[in-house]
Amino acid sequence: MRAYNFSAGPAALPLEVLQQAADEMLDWQGSGMSVMEMSHRGREYTSIHEAALGDLRELLAIPSSHRVLLMQGGGLAENAIVPLNLLGARRRADYVVTGSWSGKSQKEALRYCDAHVAVSTAAGGFVRVPSLDEWQLSPDAAYVHVCTNETVNGVEFAEVPALGDVPLVADISSHMLSRPLDIARYGALYGGAQKNVGIAGLTVVIVREDLLDRALAICPSAFEWKTVAQNNSMYNTPPTYAIYIAGLVCQWLKRQGGLAEIERRNIAKARLLYETIDRSAFYANPVQPDARSRMNVPFTLADESRNAAFLDGARERGLTQLKGHKSVGGMRASIYNAMPMAGVEALVDYMTAFEREQA
Amino acid sequence: MRAYNFSAGPAALPLEVLQQAADEMLDWQGSGMSVMEMSHRGREYTSIHEAALGDLRELLAIPSSHRVLLMQGGGLAENAIVPLNLLGARRRADYVVTGSWSGKSQKEALRYCDAHVAVSTAAGGFVRVPSLDEWQLSPDAAYVHVCTNETVNGVEFAEVPALGDVPLVADISSHMLSRPLDIARYGALYGGAQKNVGIAGLTVVIVREDLLDRALAICPSAFEWKTVAQNNSMYNTPPTYAIYIAGLVCQWLKRQGGLAEIERRNIAKARLLYETIDRSAFYANPVQPDARSRMNVPFTLADESRNAAFLDGARERGLTQLKGHKSVGGMRASIYNAMPMAGVEALVDYMTAFEREQA
Repeated sequence: MRAYNFSAGPAALPLEVLQQAADEMLDWQGSGMSVMEMSHRGREYTSIHEAALGDLRELLAIPSSHRVLLMQGGGLAENAIVPLNLLGARRRADYVVTGSWSGKSQKEALRYCDAHVAVSTAAGGFVRVPSLDEWQLSPDAAYVHVCTNETVNGVEFAEVPALGDVPLVADISSHMLSRPLDIARYGALYGGAQKNVGIAGLTVVIVREDLLDRALAICPSAFEWKTVAQNNSMYNTPPTYAIYIAGLVCQWLKRQGGLAEIERRNIAKARLLYETIDRSAFYANPVQPDARSRMNVPFTLADESRNAAFLDGARERGLTQLKGHKSVGGMRASIYNAMPMAGVEALVDYMTAFEREQA
Repeated sequence: MRAYNFSAGPAALPLEVLQQAADEMLDWQGSGMSVMEMSHRGREYTSIHEAALGDLRELLAIPSSHRVLLMQGGGLAENAIVPLNLLGARRRADYVVTGSWSGKSQKEALRYCDAHVAVSTAAGGFVRVPSLDEWQLSPDAAYVHVCTNETVNGVEFAEVPALGDVPLVADISSHMLSRPLDIARYGALYGGAQKNVGIAGLTVVIVREDLLDRALAICPSAFEWKTVAQNNSMYNTPPTYAIYIAGLVCQWLKRQGGLAEIERRNIAKARLLYETIDRSAFYANPVQPDARSRMNVPFTLADESRNAAFLDGARERGLTQLKGHKSVGGMRASIYNAMPMAGVEALVDYMTAFEREQA
């Protein structure tokens, strides 16, 4: 039996994607070889690479001003790669800290610059998105960095402000492809693929072309966005199989109706889960309603001594990977694109039954 | 029909590995999920991770003095990551340049230090391994770098010299796991997995533990060997599926009899191919016999105008990816572990027939 897998990432994939990957494993479309075995320079892999890039552009409606790069190292590596590529002659960057991940981004950037905390919501426990008038921006910042969905804290930006000339850089790891984004507002966006895009080992970077000339001399060439762009993401051997899976996910998304339709479903899934939490005194989520993530829903039990029993009972029903992040505790349900409404329904049914048992 | 795939990498995988990956794609060992969908912190993936690390240690007989790290970015990224981790307070490193890949390593290191060319065999066309008395080593070098198998030029070190106190660093990308190595001789070894170990997107690094304290402050933490070691290669999300495939390849290697047996087979395969080249005036390989690679065999036709016809005929017989690297021309047969003797026999039969047709 396939479980409903609520892992925060690596995370559930659409069953159709896994089925196609299994079917094509030994022989991709009559080529006589697995995708894993293809030279990245050959015509078979080239067609997979171009299709994935094209489908990412189409799904996200990426304007011609921006390039898409397929890289490695995940979000944590990009935390260094961003300043290495964007500082140019400047020595300061602004960081908006709204949770665990943007906090890590800011700390890593300190290796390369004065990474200024423009605003932090740590004092309130990372439960909100600060409004623009709270952001103490530096006049000389090379960029302003945000994390538009905090996977650990369950905080999501509904929208980002227009900042004028200073490039806005966003870590979109855990909600990339879950909703349409106005890419033109951003200087750069990046994310690990292991939530909504595919599997671990692929990082998607979207960057405005005019920002490609700002890399520091100490940036490794394999991580220099300009070099990666000039080589169509083949400067070093790309993670070919991870890109193939991302391509299958993109095709699946297009069959579902694209990001507008997937957003509609994600709104409905999140609403059902938050309503279940809110109408009960037994469950709680601390995030302000307008900042709640559609992707990652942390919640606690009024009686924390029941956590293990909750998780055990969930597992018995095939509801897996619900344990919360250690820094937050309790539970976390990550309900990415591949989680069907039926999975969320099974979860809320179980939550209701579990609460009743405790009464 | 499965082809005999002579790609230099990504390259052919053992059929048994692909079959197992296909069989387990939807449900790994009753877990209800694909390996692709597992949290890297969960007990299922942890068992895969530990087994892969353990099998790599066992196959390569890695002494307890050395750590194994599972990273991302491939050999080209490591070309920067090596100096970023090993320079410490020194400003110089020595590079032995025996082909295209070691040349790239030296150029990349210039971003971080005085990357001194201790010896280069470029003048002779990269057809040999220089003896130690030719190496002009610097007294203050942080390390000496070699590439022990040059994928493009087909030059392989039969052994490496003992250098005393200065750490020897080797790019072993294209012959890792093809033969036993005396790991204790090396300060660090690294390689992309996409030749003998598995698929693109995984980099294996083996480093002597006492060298973990030499990283520069500008080294991204995701690529700092000490940080990766302290977190058991889980500082950032590891490329979990690529590590799973590497684990399957290691299990396959153990079933074959380990590296001693696989070396015996690789010697036999290479001998058959080089003998076919040498006994004909129609085919040629320029590399000195004692430096010829067992993994990558470049060869040219006496009549280069026949190259396209040779490749077309090969493809018709299911012998694929034989086109040589653009910098060398002609053909290249990469005969990694997963290439069976039957594949090399099919190639030499074709070569003999093709030559006869030309006469």
